Amino acid sequence: MIELTLIGIGTGNPDHLTLQAIAAIQEADLVLIPLKGAEKDDLAGLRRAICGRYLGPSARIAEFALPRRNSADPDYLDSVEHWHDAIAHAWQTEIRCHLPALSGKVALLVWGDPSLYDSTLRIADRLARELPVSRHVIPGITAIQALCAAHTIPLNRIGAPVQITTGRRLRDHGWPEGVDTVTVMLDGECSFQALPPEGLSIWWGAYIGMAEQILDHGPLTEAGPRIIAARAKARAAHGWIMDIYLLRRDPA
Amino acid sequence: MIELTLIGIGTGNPDHLTLQAIAAIQEADLVLIPLKGAEKDDLAGLRRAICGRYLGPSARIAEFALPRRNSADPDYLDSVEHWHDAIAHAWQTEIRCHLPALSGKVALLVWGDPSLYDSTLRIADRLARELPVSRHVIPGITAIQALCAAHTIPLNRIGAPVQITTGRRLRDHGWPEGVDTVTVMLDGECSFQALPPEGLSIWWGAYIGMAEQILDHGPLTEAGPRIIAARAKARAAHGWIMDIYLLRRDPA
Ligand SMILES: C[S@@+](CC[C@H](N)C(=O)[O-])C[C@H]1O[C@@H](n2cnc3c(N)ncnc32)[C@H](O)[C@@H]1O
Ligand SMILES: C[S@@+](CC[C@H](N)C(=O)[O-])C[C@H]1O[C@@H](n2cnc3c(N)ncnc32)[C@H](O)[C@@H]1O
Repeated sequence: MIELTLIGIGTGNPDHLTLQAIAAIQEADLVLIPLKGAEKDDLAGLRRAICGRYLGPSARIAEFALPRRNSADPDYLDSVEHWHDAIAHAWQTEIRCHLPALSGKVALLVWGDPSLYDSTLRIADRLARELPVSRHVIPGITAIQALCAAHTIPLNRIGAPVQITTGRRLRDHGWPEGVDTVTVMLDGECSFQALPPEGLSIWWGAYIGMAEQILDHGPLTEAGPRIIAARAKARAAHGWIMDIYLLRRDPA
Repeated sequence: MIELTLIGIGTGNPDHLTLQAIAAIQEADLVLIPLKGAEKDDLAGLRRAICGRYLGPSARIAEFALPRRNSADPDYLDSVEHWHDAIAHAWQTEIRCHLPALSGKVALLVWGDPSLYDSTLRIADRLARELPVSRHVIPGITAIQALCAAHTIPLNRIGAPVQITTGRRLRDHGWPEGVDTVTVMLDGECSFQALPPEGLSIWWGAYIGMAEQILDHGPLTEAGPRIIAARAKARAAHGWIMDIYLLRRDPA
């Protein structure tokens, strides 16, 4: 039996690791580290550093190239399905290679928390159809918590709801019904530009928790243009960017 | 200058603590521990255990009775404002007593994450109007992450939004517009009963991460009645309960 643990590692600050996460890393026989795109070095670097610090002496690290999604597929969800199949297959190959008896503890270090805009759990479900696998999740600090902490702001107004959404949804559907607070992730295009900025404030952060961290906040009319410029500059400088923001309607 | 750090400690499992949280506790000169209601012993117990393990030898712990909200006030938000004023006043009294030079590091151990349905940040803002205080937040594992991890489920569908809301909102406003996934917190009444249960699934958890943890999930038609019964029983047995759930529309 393979015991597969998806370990939330937080959003780039190695001190986001929980004691539970550290214990799970210490117990692992094999750690799978996918390598991808431009962020490759920085993000895999953090995972390697974490392994270097906590992994036991007999544990193994398997780095493998993350398969790519076919972005030419016009059906987005369909392309994601195939992509997840391919990743599950890559995991299986590594596991069969490093743990041929199909027994042991396999760990995946998941950015932030495994439940939030992450496909690792779905891929684990696929793997479990092919191999005898038990699945476990260790929660981690999400980019949402990291954003609020960096700005020392609450996520919600008192007793009020919050919507978590993506840049694409914000562009396609505008401000969501029934909420005053929206957090936006997975946004490559500063999609807040799709909203009339009046009466909205923004709290934005990039590379939160990392050495490169940048923060800005203010009325969207003023902070929006600053953020667009800062984001473009940072992205050019580092070759990649991860950013998130919270939008809140100003009190009436 | 008082350096006030709100430290997210996770939702009851001491191993939810992050390295960042532990470092902040180790550095504290004074830890404020509010005591309240029925959960008093269990919840203050966790905070005391954490302090016992990580607090430095010269640090002090100030336990104080948490003022109560005037639940007779018909204006809910108004009663909350007064209540937060009273808590800020209680903090100030403790700080002046234990750090009369108004200098040092004060820590508050906040359940879950300080940004999520928690008033500590708002109280800290009030304190900062009365004393020279710098505010800092260390993120923690929220009940939402703990729920998803315990059930090994994703929070969101692929690329889809999620609403975080309260039991009261669900009762008063029904299913929120534009989302297929809703997480419900602060619900003393199993408010999912206000929804037509057909076509919904629920993932529920109480005391998540603690020794008393209970989980259930399934179609709301079947799991709903089980959860109502289990919740009433657990609440009677322990004298208090903390529970959270995720509701998801079944795929069409
Ligand atoms: C694929 S999702 C993964 C989210 C992750 N599982 C979590 O719990 O935060 C990636 C998105 O998370 C956000 N994100 C993750 N880490 C971040 C960081 N350090 N700073 C800012 N945003 C971050 C960005 O919105 C990014 O587009
Ligand atoms: C005042 S809010 C605080 C939330 C906390 N700041 C967080 O980040 O999770 C309390 C609510 O959180 C949820 N909660 C907190 N801890 C929990 C636990 N261990 N198990 C289940 N629900 C919990 C419940 O919905 C409860 O009503």
